[in-house]
Amino acid sequence: MFEIRQRDGLARVCRMVTAHGTVDTPALLPVINPNRPLISPREMKSTFGAQAIITNSYIIWRTPGLREAALSKGVHSLADFDGTVMTDSGTFQSYMYGRVEVGAKEIVEFQRSVRTDIGTILDIFTEPAATRDDVASAIEETIKRGAEAIPGKGEMLLAGTVQGGVYADLREDCARRMSDMAFDIHPIGGVVPLMEGYRYADLVDVVIASKKGLRPSRPVHLFGAGHPMLFPLAALMGCDLFDSSSYAKYAADGRILTPAGTLRVNELAEMPCACPVCSRHSAKEMAESQRLMAEHNLHISFTELRRVREAIRGGHLWELVEERARAHPSLIEALRRLATHSEYLERFEPLSRASALFYTGPETIQRPTVKRVRARLRERALPFVNKPLVVLPEVEKPYSRHHIETIEKIWKAADARIAVAGYFGLVPIELDEVYPISQSIIPQQTDLETQADAEREIRGEASAIDPAMPVFWDWQEEMTGLREGYPAKGAPDRDVGRVRAVADYQFGAGAGGALTRGAVAIVKSKRTGRIRNAMLDGKHVLSMRAHDGFFTLKPAGATVLHAALKAPRMRVVVAEDAVPFVKAGKNLFAKFALSCDPELRPGDEALLVDSSDKLLGLGQVLLVSGEIGAFERGVAVSARDGIP
Amino acid sequence: MFEIRQRDGLARVCRMVTAHGTVDTPALLPVINPNRPLISPREMKSTFGAQAIITNSYIIWRTPGLREAALSKGVHSLADFDGTVMTDSGTFQSYMYGRVEVGAKEIVEFQRSVRTDIGTILDIFTEPAATRDDVASAIEETIKRGAEAIPGKGEMLLAGTVQGGVYADLREDCARRMSDMAFDIHPIGGVVPLMEGYRYADLVDVVIASKKGLRPSRPVHLFGAGHPMLFPLAALMGCDLFDSSSYAKYAADGRILTPAGTLRVNELAEMPCACPVCSRHSAKEMAESQRLMAEHNLHISFTELRRVREAIRGGHLWELVEERARAHPSLIEALRRLATHSEYLERFEPLSRASALFYTGPETIQRPTVKRVRARLRERALPFVNKPLVVLPEVEKPYSRHHIETIEKIWKAADARIAVAGYFGLVPIELDEVYPISQSIIPQQTDLETQADAEREIRGEASAIDPAMPVFWDWQEEMTGLREGYPAKGAPDRDVGRVRAVADYQFGAGAGGALTRGAVAIVKSKRTGRIRNAMLDGKHVLSMRAHDGFFTLKPAGATVLHAALKAPRMRVVVAEDAVPFVKAGKNLFAKFALSCDPELRPGDEALLVDSSDKLLGLGQVLLVSGEIGAFERGVAVSARDGIP
Repeated sequence: MFEIRQRDGLARVCRMVTAHGTVDTPALLPVINPNRPLISPREMKSTFGAQAIITNSYIIWRTPGLREAALSKGVHSLADFDGTVMTDSGTFQSYMYGRVEVGAKEIVEFQRSVRTDIGTILDIFTEPAATRDDVASAIEETIKRGAEAIPGKGEMLLAGTVQGGVYADLREDCARRMSDMAFDIHPIGGVVPLMEGYRYADLVDVVIASKKGLRPSRPVHLFGAGHPMLFPLAALMGCDLFDSSSYAKYAADGRILTPAGTLRVNELAEMPCACPVCSRHSAKEMAESQRLMAEHNLHISFTELRRVREAIRGGHLWELVEERARAHPSLIEALRRLATHSEYLERFEPLSRASALFYTGPETIQRPTVKRVRARLRERALPFVNKPLVVLPEVEKPYSRHHIETIEKIWKAADARIAVAGYFGLVPIELDEVYPISQSIIPQQTDLETQADAEREIRGEASAIDPAMPVFWDWQEEMTGLREGYPAKGAPDRDVGRVRAVADYQFGAGAGGALTRGAVAIVKSKRTGRIRNAMLDGKHVLSMRAHDGFFTLKPAGATVLHAALKAPRMRVVVAEDAVPFVKAGKNLFAKFALSCDPELRPGDEALLVDSSDKLLGLGQVLLVSGEIGAFERGVAVSARDGIP
Repeated sequence: MFEIRQRDGLARVCRMVTAHGTVDTPALLPVINPNRPLISPREMKSTFGAQAIITNSYIIWRTPGLREAALSKGVHSLADFDGTVMTDSGTFQSYMYGRVEVGAKEIVEFQRSVRTDIGTILDIFTEPAATRDDVASAIEETIKRGAEAIPGKGEMLLAGTVQGGVYADLREDCARRMSDMAFDIHPIGGVVPLMEGYRYADLVDVVIASKKGLRPSRPVHLFGAGHPMLFPLAALMGCDLFDSSSYAKYAADGRILTPAGTLRVNELAEMPCACPVCSRHSAKEMAESQRLMAEHNLHISFTELRRVREAIRGGHLWELVEERARAHPSLIEALRRLATHSEYLERFEPLSRASALFYTGPETIQRPTVKRVRARLRERALPFVNKPLVVLPEVEKPYSRHHIETIEKIWKAADARIAVAGYFGLVPIELDEVYPISQSIIPQQTDLETQADAEREIRGEASAIDPAMPVFWDWQEEMTGLREGYPAKGAPDRDVGRVRAVADYQFGAGAGGALTRGAVAIVKSKRTGRIRNAMLDGKHVLSMRAHDGFFTLKPAGATVLHAALKAPRMRVVVAEDAVPFVKAGKNLFAKFALSCDPELRPGDEALLVDSSDKLLGLGQVLLVSGEIGAFERGVAVSARDGIP
């Protein structure tokens, strides 16, 4: 019922299918008060485009009129809504008032009886101030109730809430145990006090810990998240569903929501908003009408989710999150906390994006993509053979004729290793067109990465470099230095060097050597002079993509890499049933993918093999290790070619 | 015709009065193509709320049908617009096509003949690549043309454009010479290439240099600025008017404007915007209609100006600018460049704001407000008398009972100087409630201001401190240290110390001493325990404001300060005609203010005196040095009390 279509960070644009239609996630479920909806569910759909709503089954259960109506004609009729209906269980009421009158099993059965699409177990709310022991007990009770509820869920989708207070290990453990049960959705509960207290950094720890334990194929619902300024960050962390009563609560308090924070309407002279409501009404009219403020809040909240989904599709969610972090300093704290989780985040971060990387502040260098560049340069752009190293200051690309000629001269004169010093440290010139090295926009005079830092790094970490080898930093000086000290020894082909370096960087050490061992021919673009295709012994092995500087693998190239790199490197293993389809060049669907190289990232090229490692085809990875095996719907590897 | 109503940074919310109504600035004048308006001027007013439009008098002049219609029935009828009409002169056409057919004097006379509200001289466009000599010649020709145009302007308001390429000194000089002539508005010209090339940092230098030379009482128009992502920064630098053909040009290219950048509509799956157009149309419909995209662009542009005006009123324009800087790395460069001008900016920066200061990134510490705190602490919170210094780590305010008791103990035990170490460095505890020290929200672990930095500062710069005096940094340790080394010497009154410190910080050195020399009585809030009023020898001299921790001066306090502080300190000198009104407690209007203490800032308390320095009253400053004498309309000092 849940299928990934696009991704960025841990975020994903998915389709969630229920008995009453499809929900495009990340999605917002407006909270409907069953007693007195301020805005009717019908309007939620027609005016705001809501595909799903959430209402409270406990309130319906305890209110005689509502209860009978819901039991007789179903919750969709009661709410007058023909889309997806989710129901909450009374957990929050239990937390607020100390108890609820209904039993845990009874409320799940009630939800099924009123034919809700998604029901929720009556979990135990774990508040941030709770002791570790109390939280551990609450988790045990929640899991017990979950286990008891599942047999009775029938056709209803059931949400199994992750609890754990602020204890990351308990969250992860709870998430893992809930994932082992047959739930369909996992809310993250007990987080409202964190959000109300602007404890967004702690929220980051809680969400990431939960994500680590959860089965990635199930939608994650951040319970009670209704402020649009939080949607981009929460989506980036992999939350798929949000529910909001904020639109109504803030309106009742005379406040409106914006992605940049909250405004008190009676302090405004004019409305700083373009939404249909604010466009038609004065600040005075807005301040006098709770309903108008609520409508504004819904317009802005739904718009922010459209913006989030577009940012995922366009590959600029990180930029959106970093922009939104200016709404409140606590969100900057949250971003800094998120950076402590980058090793985990990097596993899901796409290889490249449709958009250039924009620097927005010191937080940008903490992004998984940036850390990946630095790690791969260390691991895959080595060994730095014992050649003199010439470092060019970062210059505008495309290089001027003068630059190109100078580079050629240096390189022919000395067979030197040439690197460019810039935001990403020292980058071998062969990799200067690879994402995001060339696809970044960085202000001048950043607070980061001086040449000295880069030099320290290369001296310290790149142990293949002979410390006695000279490093030339000056564009003019290095020419003199080279001419005197390092006469040419016969230069290898520079284009082949680039193919080798990019292949090592993209596919891992050894790939470049394998793909250039033989007679290499390079086809270049006449217009740009950049490499387009690489042929090995007359066969087309690689094409270079203009937008991100990485290679697209061709069948002959796949065959070479399959022979050169030992399993599981670059492999995705295909189930027996799907072998004929993959050979015929069809996409590999998630449920037919058995396992994969844990080093593969979304967007990576993959070798599709059968269980005995026979090469069947190749394609581009959409799902990665940990996700393969979990998802039942959607594409795991987008096919490029079958190898019959 | 131009009156300041609210201000923040160099920005101001003003009313500009023309023959066809009032324009609330900062304002956007949509550019109307006289030949084929995509969106009619009538709609500009009814749908988008445009109070003014701009059209091109040269295109009208050279197009026979338009020319005759404009001459016979006037440009307002031609455009079908009854609000303010500004006309441009052909300068940009001259720059684009090398020449125009009309004479400089002729086009100004033509503009007057078609009864435009605001005409523009035919200045010479100075492009960024022009040499210094060429720019200097262009300026001379522009000034010559300006001087020739003025006698014929009649009732028409005339815009005298500032040129100067990227040469800051030439810009400032040109601005000063244009200001000396009887123009009504000053466009800043020749900046479109800077904006098109994302050279926002250079734009900052150009605008600030122009502002330094311009008479502050005249509206400043940033010619050709039409992208909403630039409006907050441009307004912050004191630009009042913008004109946009961007709404149409981007639409023609299939792109829409957003405050966070530009989007290509055919790349979108859904519209990430809440405006009335995007709310009603799919991305596909939008992409197919130039008109819908233009409407969106106008909605968003006018909304961003409402947002800018609200940010000025609410005192959070800096936060908005810093948020918008994430739209493009070049805007971050611009912010960094702006920081090099903070000494100039600080002269106009209000004493406090309605909003708390939000940290958004390393740029925040470069704001004039933050630099002012550090400068005033050095200049006005000294001498740090030779007492042991106890430094408290920054703690949450309000202080807990434990903290207060500890502070009291330290202070009684040792008559020690107590400071709090935080974002603003070392702050004497007496000043910890003053804006923005207490009204700031800063993330933990900022990249700024370590305790070590603060200690270095205090050792290095606060020379009154005996370097041998101990500085205690540890909350526990300092108690031991004090008890052993520094027995109590009899503690002075802590509240009086606070009154003295705040008065020195707010009014300048010596003010605190004068206001506490005698019998001091302090009235405190029963609820918060904070100081509310200070009495000196039985007279009410000061009230402390809850929202910013500064004092409101009472007549008795004004009398004390008037006697203690020599002219021109804290003075605003009142023209003879206005003396009776000021004595009666009326506001001091701009045209009756003769001069003022150059150290006064917006929001400061001022002593109103006559030319022989007799005290007439007191009030709160709205206009500062350089503005007083220039403005002819509006309030210069908002009266608090007259002194008959």
